[in-house]
Amino acid sequence: MVTDFDNGDSFIHVLPVDIESASLSIIEAELPHPLDPVLAPIVKRVVHATADFDYVDNLVFSEGAVGQALDALRRRAVIVTDTMMAQAGVNKPALAALGVQTRCFMADPATARAALANGTTRAAAAMERACGLPDPVVFAIGNAPTALVSLCRLIGEGRLSPALVIGAPVGFVNVVPAKELIMAAGVPYIVCRGRKGGSAVAAAVVNALLYLLTRPTDDPPPGLGPVQP
Amino acid sequence: MVTDFDNGDSFIHVLPVDIESASLSIIEAELPHPLDPVLAPIVKRVVHATADFDYVDNLVFSEGAVGQALDALRRRAVIVTDTMMAQAGVNKPALAALGVQTRCFMADPATARAALANGTTRAAAAMERACGLPDPVVFAIGNAPTALVSLCRLIGEGRLSPALVIGAPVGFVNVVPAKELIMAAGVPYIVCRGRKGGSAVAAAVVNALLYLLTRPTDDPPPGLGPVQP
Repeated sequence: MVTDFDNGDSFIHVLPVDIESASLSIIEAELPHPLDPVLAPIVKRVVHATADFDYVDNLVFSEGAVGQALDALRRRAVIVTDTMMAQAGVNKPALAALGVQTRCFMADPATARAALANGTTRAAAAMERACGLPDPVVFAIGNAPTALVSLCRLIGEGRLSPALVIGAPVGFVNVVPAKELIMAAGVPYIVCRGRKGGSAVAAAVVNALLYLLTRPTDDPPPGLGPVQP
Repeated sequence: MVTDFDNGDSFIHVLPVDIESASLSIIEAELPHPLDPVLAPIVKRVVHATADFDYVDNLVFSEGAVGQALDALRRRAVIVTDTMMAQAGVNKPALAALGVQTRCFMADPATARAALANGTTRAAAAMERACGLPDPVVFAIGNAPTALVSLCRLIGEGRLSPALVIGAPVGFVNVVPAKELIMAAGVPYIVCRGRKGGSAVAAAVVNALLYLLTRPTDDPPPGLGPVQP
């Protein structure tokens, strides 16, 4: 149980436009160890969204996941979220700049009916709905472990081939094994292992990827630069 | 840096409808110390949303805050959020059951214009917009410390008299002092001290309050029971 009450007891003067870069500088200075430069923008963005340095070590990436994700986004991947909250957290100007759209099937009455009929969660039923989307599809899961389990089944059945699965459900029941399961499914992943996560984490990972393509000042590593105008 | 990989390595069978109560039972069992029964539903709901037991001690409540908040919600308080994400995270059936509405002025072009004109953040400008709302108003701030600073100024000027301020911005720049400032503003508050917080935390506090009024099974403490049908 660590609190930060000793840190920043008084206000510092930072222009609104500079708050984000000042935050990222503080994060950089407090990192417990150096980061892989390809992964660093994603890790730092999640720490920025949570103020929780646990994510420095909880976040794990399949080999080449960041490059594959950026390729998919350049090809205007659809981003499917498991909550309206994660969808709301994705940066709209960055989506517009790339011509990328988000979808969330959770609030759709057809999803609720399918879940009831099959005795499953709405999140699991919502993943089934995504089978109708054209590739590439990026999944950003910030709430329901059952969504990850459903994705694993659909991948195993050959009905889905995600360009990336962001596995960041939060919670106490079946969250840990669901994350381990998706990491063994043979698809590109970015997962925060353990119980922690949430819609804000899933959205932060998506935003970090979008910013690598839309914000030249983010100093992306070689080969992962912004889209040329 | 604590990870929970040793916990829950295999799936347990829980029906979808029982996942939430199973989660709350695990939280109850792992609490570092007993909670005030009036505050417990809010604290446990935030831990549920974050899987982070830091909130057991980070969450602080002004005297009588929960009762005052429930009174305001019974009187159909408007809930003003500082992010679309927090607004998306508030439980819609619970809102409907109580006839309570949420508002977020962040995406409104008039808010952006006011922020630019005044050299402030959109979040600060969004709080100004809330001065036109009829009482009671509950503020749920999960992102911008400048929203809390703006609220303090508007309260000091007598232009706002919030029924409750939920102060849960997350971050590294001015977040800690902004939370301390709102705790000294003389209005009912629920604040998570320190750097941590976020839209999910703000929404979890709102939902916990809504559920105290709408879910008879939540076993509310005496005097804070559900609305009679």
